[in-house]
Parts: sequence; structure tokens; C-alpha cells
Amino acid sequence: MQAIELNNSLNYRQDKPIPAVSGDEALIRLKLAGVCATDLELVKGYAGFTGIIGHEFVGVVEAVGQEKHQHWLNKRVVGSINIGCGVCEDCRGDGPEHCANRKVLGIRGHDGAFADYLRLPVGNLHEVPDEVPDEAAVFTEPLAATIRVLKQLAPLPVKPAAVIGPGRLGLLIAKVLALAGYDVEVLGRSEISLALPQQWLLKTALVQDVPANHFDYVVDASGSAEGFSQALRIIKPRGTLVLKSTFAASEPVDLSKVVVGELNILGSRCGPFDEALALLRQGSIPLASMVDARYSLKDGLAALRHAAQPGVRKILLQP
Amino acid sequence: MQAIELNNSLNYRQDKPIPAVSGDEALIRLKLAGVCATDLELVKGYAGFTGIIGHEFVGVVEAVGQEKHQHWLNKRVVGSINIGCGVCEDCRGDGPEHCANRKVLGIRGHDGAFADYLRLPVGNLHEVPDEVPDEAAVFTEPLAATIRVLKQLAPLPVKPAAVIGPGRLGLLIAKVLALAGYDVEVLGRSEISLALPQQWLLKTALVQDVPANHFDYVVDASGSAEGFSQALRIIKPRGTLVLKSTFAASEPVDLSKVVVGELNILGSRCGPFDEALALLRQGSIPLASMVDARYSLKDGLAALRHAAQPGVRKILLQP
Repeated sequence: MQAIELNNSLNYRQDKPIPAVSGDEALIRLKLAGVCATDLELVKGYAGFTGIIGHEFVGVVEAVGQEKHQHWLNKRVVGSINIGCGVCEDCRGDGPEHCANRKVLGIRGHDGAFADYLRLPVGNLHEVPDEVPDEAAVFTEPLAATIRVLKQLAPLPVKPAAVIGPGRLGLLIAKVLALAGYDVEVLGRSEISLALPQQWLLKTALVQDVPANHFDYVVDASGSAEGFSQALRIIKPRGTLVLKSTFAASEPVDLSKVVVGELNILGSRCGPFDEALALLRQGSIPLASMVDARYSLKDGLAALRHAAQPGVRKILLQP
Repeated sequence: MQAIELNNSLNYRQDKPIPAVSGDEALIRLKLAGVCATDLELVKGYAGFTGIIGHEFVGVVEAVGQEKHQHWLNKRVVGSINIGCGVCEDCRGDGPEHCANRKVLGIRGHDGAFADYLRLPVGNLHEVPDEVPDEAAVFTEPLAATIRVLKQLAPLPVKPAAVIGPGRLGLLIAKVLALAGYDVEVLGRSEISLALPQQWLLKTALVQDVPANHFDYVVDASGSAEGFSQALRIIKPRGTLVLKSTFAASEPVDLSKVVVGELNILGSRCGPFDEALALLRQGSIPLASMVDARYSLKDGLAALRHAAQPGVRKILLQP
């Protein structure tokens, strides 16, 4: 089968075997996949992953490892990406997201979705409702990660919020917060980066124009140390800063405001697929306008180069 | 009067006028003051303060600005250090700690306690119970800052905690957490730094010997970027990291675990004086063993040099 494989360098392969599935696993035929910032970081060497990359997908179940899972056959599915050991305290408690021995689809110890076929435990699968087309379903994973921010802010009173970074993730986060009733502003470094947020009817501003100590809640989805420094600058004392994107620690960041301002920083990663699918069913997010291009797997390397260009949001891959 | 004044360089002055008090202010004659890490940072240029330094003190009220405050005369007092504007949302809500226009005793816009006399609004004063000697009362401010950590962890379930940095503040934090029922371990870089924590009957370990992902709660009182990196290393996913000390951002710190491990970082600064005094009344903390030396104000510069030596905990100053 075809696959985009990372092995020091990134390669397009045509000779990968279709994965064998057994036990609780399902074999999924890819319909559509999305390129995420994490994929681009993996290519740069983050997390030291070797194998087929990709973790945002929608596909169809073509085989299962055990007869009892046959009801999954021919179902259109998306899949959560953390595959836990199933027996540790984390897996039995909050879920596999923080299992020390977890594998992660296309990120850690488990081949990913940029291929004709992938495999996942059926416990990771979620059937896609008929009303949700592939072009929306492929956003389930990033949208779930977005809803995680909402969940983390939920115990706190609703207050004005800023999202730094109007990119593929920041835009979704801002829209989901706005739909949930937050007074939210999308902050970017350039006017051009704010055009699509404005088209989505979101309030926008240039981050450098925001006064210090201005927002109660700040979500940093900038993916840069500079964005994080801006987040620290514009947040109010005792504010909550949701850190959504990792960035290479290229320069020292002054953390003294965290102490002096008694800030609360919340790291934020994966979220609930069922709620993301429920939101997609409503069709209230204009996802199509986020898609810059669609490539075939055979042009996967060009697709990832395109995704790495500044200002590019979502690049999709199809078999 | 005598005073230790920072004005680019640190100077011992004998010619400073006794402060004039008016309105809601009280004039306090110094009995005993303590040197804190923040004083040492101020001398290095942190916060750009000019004036008399010092903010940990016990003294006696000798004059008040208005007749209605006369009941404070001759009272032995300690004083909280934030002087708010009194009218903003912060001052009317949580208190003056985060008032944007606040002054801070010996730190920001208000002369401090390393002098024969200081002035403070009577609203900042707390009378010291007779059972609490000066040598204990002088620890009220750092002990209050310590209790703030307890308050911030209070909404969470009690779980094993580590305190990184067995210095003047870390030692107090560990003891207060232990007295509150936490299974707490004090972590230092050298065996010698752990001798006093052991004498205080606290569990100790070398921070470099602690496995990764080991503690649910970690308090970083190390005052160093290295300590903060260790805190990120030893904390469990979804753990809570209380950041207690500021440090110069001399090198990049890798914050990716904050996101991947969905950590919760809580900045922590000042705390409640009344609860600190209540704890001091119990006499359950062997504070005398923390005091390395006592100097007269005229030897204040030597006192600060002594306080800056590695391994030194509390240095006291008296008129």
C-alpha cells in the first residue's frame, strides 16, 4: 500500500504491507486525512518518531481482529489517537491519554493515518453520523482537542478570552469558545492572518496592539516562544493561560509574571471525540474555508511542504 | 535615622529622615527584620527598585496619622507588604496583592523595613500575640507566603508532594505542608542542603535521584531555571506545579511537557498574615534553627553579603 513514512527523512512508499489486525483491532481504509502542526514537528525530529505519520483521519472499517467486533465492518469511523496499556491507573481512571506506556497513532510507537490503510483498537473508534461528510469528519481530532480547552475553562466563570495564533488550531479554539458564549478575540501578528477569523465573524486584533494585563483568559495556540511571551504579557494577574501548542524552547522566557501575577497555566492536549462529532453534526463551523488544498498520498511530501508554509491552515490527504 | 538604601548600589545611610506619617498611616519603630531572596534579587537589579529595602519585620507603632488610629500606639506589629490604591476592582475584591497601582513595602514605590523606622497604612498591620517572640514574628511574612501554597492546593485531593529547594522558603513550605498532613519530600542538590530539613524531621532526597513522573504535586522553591526543569521532570502527568520563586531566565526551559502532560502550573506569592500568626502561636516550627546570623543595621551590607552565600537560610537585622 501507499504510505508517507518518516525514517530520519520523510518518504513516499508504495511497498508497505497492509497492516495485519488481530484481537481488538480494526483495519481501516483511509478516506481522508488532515495534516497537523504536530506532523510538521515530527518531521523536524520532535519525539523521535519513526514510522507512518498522520493522526487526523476518517475511514471505513474493512476488517476486524475478532468476530465479536464484526458490527464495526463497513462503518465510517474516526479514531482517538492514544492507545493505552489498558491496565494502569491512568487507563482505568481518566483514560489512556497519560498512560506511561501508551502508543499514539502516527506519533509514538504506532503507524499512522497517511496511508491506504491503518489499524486501531475498536475501543478508539467513533462512528461518524451520516450528516457529517468526510470533509468535516476529518476535523474531529483537532476539534476534540479544541473542546478540551472549553472543558478546562468550564469550572471557571465565563470571562473575556483571547486566542493567540490564528492558525489551524487557534481558529477552531476561538470559534468553539465563541459558540459557547465567550467574548473571544483572535490575536495574530499580521493583518493577513486575521482575514479568515474575520470571515468567521470573530473579533480580531494584532497581538502587539493589545495592552498588558488585558485578558482574564488567554489561550496560546501560537506554537512559538514569542506567542507564549505575548500571552504572559497580555494576561491579567490571577488569569488563566491555556498552553495549547508546544514550541521549540529556542530562547529563555521570563516566567517571573507567573509568580508575581499568580497566573494559572493549564497544559491542554487531547479532547472528547463524541462531543466533537456532536458539534460537527450541527454544521456551525465553516470548516471548508480552512482547507487550503487537497493532495493525493503520492504527492504527500509536497502536501507537507505546503502545510509548512506560513499562513497555511488545513491541508488534506486522500488515497 | 539608619537605613539600608538601594540606589544603583547598596548603601548604609545614617542621615535618612524619620518618615512623616499622615492619614491612615502608622510609624513603626523596627525591632527585627529578615533578609529574603527577593531583597537579594532587588540588589541585583530585579524590579528596578530605588529606596530602602526590606519587607520582613516586626516593630512597635510609635505614631499614627489620625487620632482615630491611636489604639495602635505601642502595639507590637507585623505588616502585610502590598499597599493598594483602595478603589480598583482588585482592591475591593481579592485584596491589594494584584492592584495595578499598588506599592509594595521595600520592593515597589515604598521605602522598606531595613531602617530604624518605617511607615505603613494601619490596614496592613497585624498585632503580634504576646506568646510570639520577635524572633518568630519576623517570619510572619514568609510564613504567610508559605500558607498561600496550602490554600492553592486545598481544593485538590491530598496527594504526595515534593518541594524543590531546601532554602529559606522551601523549608518553611515543606514543614507547613507536612503539618497539614501532606506526605512531603524536600529535594535538594546536595546532601548538606538536606541536613536541616532532616533535623526538622522532614523526608528528603537528592532531586537528581528522583525518577521522572513521580510526584502529583511539586512546589518549586529553588529560585533557579534548573530547579524548574527538575520540577517539570519529576511531576506526574496532570500534576500540579506550584511556582514559588522567580528566577532569572538565563536559559531556555523546555515547556513541551506542560502541554503533553497537561500540567497545571500555579504561580504563588503572598499569603494571609492572620493564619501565619496563628501558626506561629502554636510554636510548632523550629524557626530558631533557620537563623544563621543576626546583624545590626550598621552592618547591613555585610548581612546581605552573608545572606547571598550558598546554603545560608535566614539572616536577621536589628537596629
